[in-house]
Amino acid sequence: MTDFLARARELDAADMLAPFRERFVIPDEHLVYLDGNSLGRLPRSTRERLHLAIEEWGGDLIRGWDRWITLSREVGDVLAGGVLEAEPGEVVLSDSTSVNLYKLAVAACAARPDRHVIVTDDDNFPSDRYIFQGLAEERGLDLRVVKTDIDLGISVEAVREALDEDVALVSLSHVAYRSGAVADMAAVTAAAHEVGALVLWDLSHSAGAVRVPLRSAGVDLAVGCTYKHLNAGPGAPAFLYVRADLQPELRQPIWGWFGQRDQFDMGAEYDPVASIDRFQVGTPPVLGAYAALEGARITAEAGIGAIAEKGAALGAYAIEVSDAWLAPHGFALASPRAGTRRGGHVTLHHPRAWQYSQALRAAGVVPDFRTPDRLRLGFGALYTRFVDVYTGLARLRAIAASGSHLDYPERHARVT
Amino acid sequence: MTDFLARARELDAADMLAPFRERFVIPDEHLVYLDGNSLGRLPRSTRERLHLAIEEWGGDLIRGWDRWITLSREVGDVLAGGVLEAEPGEVVLSDSTSVNLYKLAVAACAARPDRHVIVTDDDNFPSDRYIFQGLAEERGLDLRVVKTDIDLGISVEAVREALDEDVALVSLSHVAYRSGAVADMAAVTAAAHEVGALVLWDLSHSAGAVRVPLRSAGVDLAVGCTYKHLNAGPGAPAFLYVRADLQPELRQPIWGWFGQRDQFDMGAEYDPVASIDRFQVGTPPVLGAYAALEGARITAEAGIGAIAEKGAALGAYAIEVSDAWLAPHGFALASPRAGTRRGGHVTLHHPRAWQYSQALRAAGVVPDFRTPDRLRLGFGALYTRFVDVYTGLARLRAIAASGSHLDYPERHARVT
Repeated sequence: MTDFLARARELDAADMLAPFRERFVIPDEHLVYLDGNSLGRLPRSTRERLHLAIEEWGGDLIRGWDRWITLSREVGDVLAGGVLEAEPGEVVLSDSTSVNLYKLAVAACAARPDRHVIVTDDDNFPSDRYIFQGLAEERGLDLRVVKTDIDLGISVEAVREALDEDVALVSLSHVAYRSGAVADMAAVTAAAHEVGALVLWDLSHSAGAVRVPLRSAGVDLAVGCTYKHLNAGPGAPAFLYVRADLQPELRQPIWGWFGQRDQFDMGAEYDPVASIDRFQVGTPPVLGAYAALEGARITAEAGIGAIAEKGAALGAYAIEVSDAWLAPHGFALASPRAGTRRGGHVTLHHPRAWQYSQALRAAGVVPDFRTPDRLRLGFGALYTRFVDVYTGLARLRAIAASGSHLDYPERHARVT
Repeated sequence: MTDFLARARELDAADMLAPFRERFVIPDEHLVYLDGNSLGRLPRSTRERLHLAIEEWGGDLIRGWDRWITLSREVGDVLAGGVLEAEPGEVVLSDSTSVNLYKLAVAACAARPDRHVIVTDDDNFPSDRYIFQGLAEERGLDLRVVKTDIDLGISVEAVREALDEDVALVSLSHVAYRSGAVADMAAVTAAAHEVGALVLWDLSHSAGAVRVPLRSAGVDLAVGCTYKHLNAGPGAPAFLYVRADLQPELRQPIWGWFGQRDQFDMGAEYDPVASIDRFQVGTPPVLGAYAALEGARITAEAGIGAIAEKGAALGAYAIEVSDAWLAPHGFALASPRAGTRRGGHVTLHHPRAWQYSQALRAAGVVPDFRTPDRLRLGFGALYTRFVDVYTGLARLRAIAASGSHLDYPERHARVT
């Protein structure tokens, strides 16, 4: 019988990223936090930077904008060079992921005026699907929804079958929010380009967790959030990416003053800059931007290759332990088994997943529940140890063995 | 000759709001800050609340959302009841002012499908004008731009002349960003309603500075920012207001998961709640929301009536001093003279306003420059003393007398 604890300790001892754990605020060492893919931990340097930013507001007042005005672009350049494999000037911090998705989807459809179809998939993140539904209803577009395997993700073949010369835009999540499955960015992008469509990737679950080969895949457009694997805090601003050559020609629909040439001239007519800044809208949130800057820098420093490798190893370890300990209690893997096909989280299926998630919280383990019956276990590679995974799953096994999860009510199905 | 300093001291001694100054972080007592209408000061309690929120993130992690999820509505209710004269459930914090303006303008035009005209004015805030230009171009709407007196604001008669049964929406700023002129909210709203149009007010320069009679004026829609007179910090989230009876029927275009019924069921079809929450989109910024909550609470505690009265008195005092000291140096009032027609700032015209603004900064006074040739002096009523106005204008007089502003370069006109 495998000594999983000894294995975890060995893996931790060999972990090149282990020192990064000390960069994070970890006030409760008993807590096993397996939800960094919903909300990442607080970096110590971010806490310091936020305190400083608050004092900047208090002391510099409006003069602070002399420096803050370029923050969204600074973060964008760190993301482009250190996290997303894009070029400087192709990424900017702006709005929320949903608003950015709307802006770029409208821009993409406007760039293909003779086409009327948006392709997405049935397991895309809800906000993405709703955004597209709204666009379709309002603009008389058709939504072509590709069927996905909710455990294994979307296949290139399924996407290809949905493609023809009516398609203006293909938009998918790079890492599926439920299963963690990684879509084949290069192949899907190439297939979309073959029929003359644009692609728009949602990187929310992949930025900071896996390699995001925007440049080599020839990606047109992307959006993503910074509060998951980029550790920028609850509701931190999102980012958007537009490939350099597309920037001057794309027209996003929300014409705000932060996209305006010589913004403080307050000119009569909207005259957007040619750069990525034309996709900005209103005054950006300074505190959130500082947190995103710090989070992006730490990720870039650790290196996305090392992070992806450790994430895959944490996932592989979790799957091995789960196979041995949890399968006998009715848990089944609901993620791809191969590390190269998985993002920074692993999902387990169990009919009583909701009750287990409540029992785990009470036992000092924070997983995520995802409908209809899944426990999602996220592994923020910068601060999660193999022993944390061990401890979390040991507590889960103890709950399963004792049946204590049955003390928690079932999740009420929605009544409509 | 009036002893303006003695007068200032008397006015400060009689000021019921004077104790509120101690609620703010004021690290440099030499600095005269006259730009609180661009970025308000940092309240001490906000600094504390933000420090606490950062620790909440670090310690509670994802569990913090059990509490954070309602923050945008909590702030909305404080704004509705204590700042804006609206009802609970009619206001919510969301996105930026520009994005909110877009959402509500699209919703308004969709509610008047047989009409094709948006009425605004030529001195509306640039971002507002750009948003409408974008909508007009994209949707084949016509923009009818009312001519405004840039010193005295917009007249009800001028608006009325632009109205007919083609008008879907009238959208103006309640307090003009340049002159500080207050529009007649009740009369304009009534005139718009007479022709069957909806109204959408931008309250960015009025929320927290003057009374905003949404209820008694029967206003349909409004947006505004929290980082000016509401003191919520740089880039803090904006708010939007939709009158209760309009909420279920209006369709905003950006269908995000924060507007979805039973959001965490992650349902297949967008099914928005009937309440103000349907105008939310993506994950809201928690730090900004806490700052907005604290800023709104302080404003509500002081009372918007008292704030408006003090703001008018500060402005009247500034105008009186300016008439005596600055008019001889070529300064002219570029705001309404009557206190009831002015928001929380006073604007002075001078051909060398840009150079004066630079010289003032060097002398420890922070005004705002506004194109083409205006010095804007803002009076955050919660922390600005009459002696601050005295000191700021005394320094301005000294600069004018010595001609030291001529040492600064002229502002380069835009070359296109």
